[in-house]
Amino acid sequence: MPPKKQQKTKPSQITLGRYLFERLKQVSVTSIFGVPGDFNLALLDKIYEVDGVRWVGNANELNASYSADGYSRVKGFGALITTFGVGELSAVNGVAGAYAEHVGLIHIVGMPSTSASQNKLLLHHTLGDARFQAFYHMSRHISWKQAMIENIESGPAVIDELIKVGCVQKRPVYLGFPCNFFDELVDANLLNTPIDLTLAPNDPQAEDELLEVIKYKFTKAQNPIILVDSCATRHSVREYVKKLIEITQFPAYTTPMGKSSVDEDNPRFGGVYVGALSQPDVKEAVESADLIVSIGGLLSDFNTGSFSYNYHTTNVIEFHSDHCKVGKATYENLKMKYVLERLDDLLKNYDIHYEPAPIPASVEAYKQSEKLTSGPLTQDYLWKRLSFFLQPGDVIVTETGTSSFGIIQTHFPKDTLGISQVLWGSIGYSLPAATGATFALEEIDPNRRVILFIGDGSLQLTVQSISDLFRWNLHPYLFILNNSGYTIEKLIHGPTAQYNQIQPWDHQLLSPLFHGSAEFENHKISTIEELNESCNDPAFEKNTKLRVIELMLDEMDAPENLIKQAKLSEKLNAKN
Amino acid sequence: MPPKKQQKTKPSQITLGRYLFERLKQVSVTSIFGVPGDFNLALLDKIYEVDGVRWVGNANELNASYSADGYSRVKGFGALITTFGVGELSAVNGVAGAYAEHVGLIHIVGMPSTSASQNKLLLHHTLGDARFQAFYHMSRHISWKQAMIENIESGPAVIDELIKVGCVQKRPVYLGFPCNFFDELVDANLLNTPIDLTLAPNDPQAEDELLEVIKYKFTKAQNPIILVDSCATRHSVREYVKKLIEITQFPAYTTPMGKSSVDEDNPRFGGVYVGALSQPDVKEAVESADLIVSIGGLLSDFNTGSFSYNYHTTNVIEFHSDHCKVGKATYENLKMKYVLERLDDLLKNYDIHYEPAPIPASVEAYKQSEKLTSGPLTQDYLWKRLSFFLQPGDVIVTETGTSSFGIIQTHFPKDTLGISQVLWGSIGYSLPAATGATFALEEIDPNRRVILFIGDGSLQLTVQSISDLFRWNLHPYLFILNNSGYTIEKLIHGPTAQYNQIQPWDHQLLSPLFHGSAEFENHKISTIEELNESCNDPAFEKNTKLRVIELMLDEMDAPENLIKQAKLSEKLNAKN
Repeated sequence: MPPKKQQKTKPSQITLGRYLFERLKQVSVTSIFGVPGDFNLALLDKIYEVDGVRWVGNANELNASYSADGYSRVKGFGALITTFGVGELSAVNGVAGAYAEHVGLIHIVGMPSTSASQNKLLLHHTLGDARFQAFYHMSRHISWKQAMIENIESGPAVIDELIKVGCVQKRPVYLGFPCNFFDELVDANLLNTPIDLTLAPNDPQAEDELLEVIKYKFTKAQNPIILVDSCATRHSVREYVKKLIEITQFPAYTTPMGKSSVDEDNPRFGGVYVGALSQPDVKEAVESADLIVSIGGLLSDFNTGSFSYNYHTTNVIEFHSDHCKVGKATYENLKMKYVLERLDDLLKNYDIHYEPAPIPASVEAYKQSEKLTSGPLTQDYLWKRLSFFLQPGDVIVTETGTSSFGIIQTHFPKDTLGISQVLWGSIGYSLPAATGATFALEEIDPNRRVILFIGDGSLQLTVQSISDLFRWNLHPYLFILNNSGYTIEKLIHGPTAQYNQIQPWDHQLLSPLFHGSAEFENHKISTIEELNESCNDPAFEKNTKLRVIELMLDEMDAPENLIKQAKLSEKLNAKN
Repeated sequence: MPPKKQQKTKPSQITLGRYLFERLKQVSVTSIFGVPGDFNLALLDKIYEVDGVRWVGNANELNASYSADGYSRVKGFGALITTFGVGELSAVNGVAGAYAEHVGLIHIVGMPSTSASQNKLLLHHTLGDARFQAFYHMSRHISWKQAMIENIESGPAVIDELIKVGCVQKRPVYLGFPCNFFDELVDANLLNTPIDLTLAPNDPQAEDELLEVIKYKFTKAQNPIILVDSCATRHSVREYVKKLIEITQFPAYTTPMGKSSVDEDNPRFGGVYVGALSQPDVKEAVESADLIVSIGGLLSDFNTGSFSYNYHTTNVIEFHSDHCKVGKATYENLKMKYVLERLDDLLKNYDIHYEPAPIPASVEAYKQSEKLTSGPLTQDYLWKRLSFFLQPGDVIVTETGTSSFGIIQTHFPKDTLGISQVLWGSIGYSLPAATGATFALEEIDPNRRVILFIGDGSLQLTVQSISDLFRWNLHPYLFILNNSGYTIEKLIHGPTAQYNQIQPWDHQLLSPLFHGSAEFENHKISTIEELNESCNDPAFEKNTKLRVIELMLDEMDAPENLIKQAKLSEKLNAKN
């Protein structure tokens, strides 16, 4: 798929392929994930023409999509390139996950030429029946906006619009890019006008009205709390939330998905609320509140202890990316970002008569584990001990399984970011997501660490992502929880069933298999002493090489909240 | 997801979950591929109630789908179970490949309960917006028929219909199975009436007319040939083709995808026709024919040397699974199976006045390599030498890449089956497909061998399929062509581009990593002497353990026909 003809390039012209990557660079996307295929090869050439943008080259497409997701959660947007049919379909699970969890990314698909489609050629990578549009139609169910380049004149605008929508909505968008357009020329001066990424303004009248109502509610409340969920991080309102806590002094809680959206060293941080699975004092504090200020809520079953929220829904103010709600009244199209910005300003000059409520004592519980010094390693110890290993700035990635439940027990230092796919919950996600996050941190500050926790079962789905890490000599911490199979599923159904078993792997050979010429370090830890020895080693604390740390855990050992969740899941299903 | 209530089982009643697996067993599907997930766990329980049916438990869903495809190509039908959303989407690439290549399989998806969908619960594994039907809609683009269990009364009929359609059409079908129906009871006596898998009969008048035309064409032809393609194997007409060759003595050629659909020891076998990429004498013989009897044609670019067929299209008789064609005239809905059956019978008593044409000499060329005894291993030597290693009954699986082109040079003994995804061409397919084929052969005759050829680049996409093989202690031959990256893509575009490089792996560690307690054998071969030494060892010839044979090949060494194909692909794209 070479340039089909030598076009005469005016100084002010560049190819549409290069235009795409220049635009991505402008929105800070400088690592492009994906797998080469013959319908995208000539497009990949263009990446090398843009300084500071790199083609990652993942081992497979699913991993590439998860990595683009992990990268986006750190940098705000991500990009993924696959080839027509075979490549793009392998990535749809990852793209759908980004859709569900409000993660912005662009999925670029190198397609057969326009004339090949029009002439219905029986090309490889087609379904054999000339339905060249089939995959594009499939993408409509799992992306926010889709477009194909259909002529060179509109090409730049199509690209700009998709990037804008993806960045602003924090959802995946899909670009079908037929290979005959890769080398077509467009005006380079278009790049001088940055893509406008500002949110459309709110209706001022509606916004005023809402702010009035909120102020009134704030004034009346005797025992208000703030509950922060994942969309606060995804839609970039963490700073406003921080100010809101400072000004109001309301106690602030997070959901499991929202963990890390509030600084846990803030004296007004009260803990993690998961409905019936919460610490009793957290449950009591949240459910006795007379006003709940909910920010960026995504109240899925695993995020709410199987919908076991038990607070008064009449006195809830909900802030969402594209609407707000007070009690039963919905304010369509009011974006929380603008409302929170003005609310902070308003409250500065406003007396809210609030007597700060005490913070639940349980928020300090994770500090107790430090007293233990020996014995076999347990989940309970691990998650509490971890509080002392984490550092400001860390990105902590946990897998759907014992890890995503266990991490709730861990105290996060400030400026950390927690990544966990709690809603979509695709097993195997966390390793490639951690890979993507490591690419992102390398670009922001290579001293910041990525720390992954994944079970031995989940690891099997996406293990070749470790190869991508070694290829670029990146240095995350890969903690592998070896508990002999799918423990989360054993707790839900079939504790001894053969289908919840897995083939045992020798995890000590992962790095030797994949490392090429990159350095690595292997650990195998079965006891508290061994864990402490590693974690207390100053050399271990620095991310100077890729580390695989295999944690030997009992098969049915699990965080207490997961055990309770599994019972609630059973109950929920039995009811239905 | 336990049984929601203890239902009183009458002796003549079984659960709908069990009913499904009893039906699959009746159509010889006794290995079920897939990955457990909480919306399918209670369904998996039912597999263990059916004697002789096993749950395989793959390392990931994409591999499971490819394995179900490989199993189906050997046994005629396959089955795959995934969980809602996350699981099923990871499998769509494999399902789409089965669609493109006419492979029958059923994709069973364990879904949230009917009431959870109706109440639009914000469950994990959903897109977070209550679109429970999104994935079902996506499946419509890549499967022949889709259905969901909506009530218990129609459940058995829905299952029967899907299995029938999948088996008869040789295409994937999709079953959405909400978890509240797994334990609902149905009449076990329904199982006493087997699913009717016969094709609907042809219109007798149209069939008569077509046969008259064919007889006339056969009588007039001076220099006819038969050209057999993949759908002859997939739609089970190989026996008729064999008889047709015997009776007519027309020389018979295959396409690359059709390889193994004609016994290559048959003295009337003339070689493989790939348009301009054919051996010159094969090209001459086919293109000078005055009648081409095309059976099961799927004339995609890679199957035709980029559409470089150069025969007289006016004198072609085409036999397809669901229609036939003579010249420009189409006979809709005439199924080749019935036509070929009657044609064989008719011709027995019919004098066709045909003077057997000579067979191209090049068909013997693969025997020459035996003379070489030393030197570095080359692609050219490998594919010819392989002719002497293969045995009757082998299943030979080749990856899209140097392997699928190289294998055209190899002579297949009788009763072999070649598996290669020439049309869909998803890299990484061949390893899990070989895994599925090995499960199938173990059930038919464990002494029959599965022999895989895959490149180091493709291997990286689906490597964990080796774990599935070890889990079941299966013994295929895994030949890994180590040529430092995506050689096929380097030939098409970007020979030195970074994006066509891969991370180097130590392939000798694959088996140590995955084997658990199963036996294995590792080989690393760089020279002709080493290859001959292994292949001539009688112990090596027997499939007594899993063998990984790493073949060290030059980066740009490739079969000659691939080099030509790459040039044609460039040309085709430049034209467009």
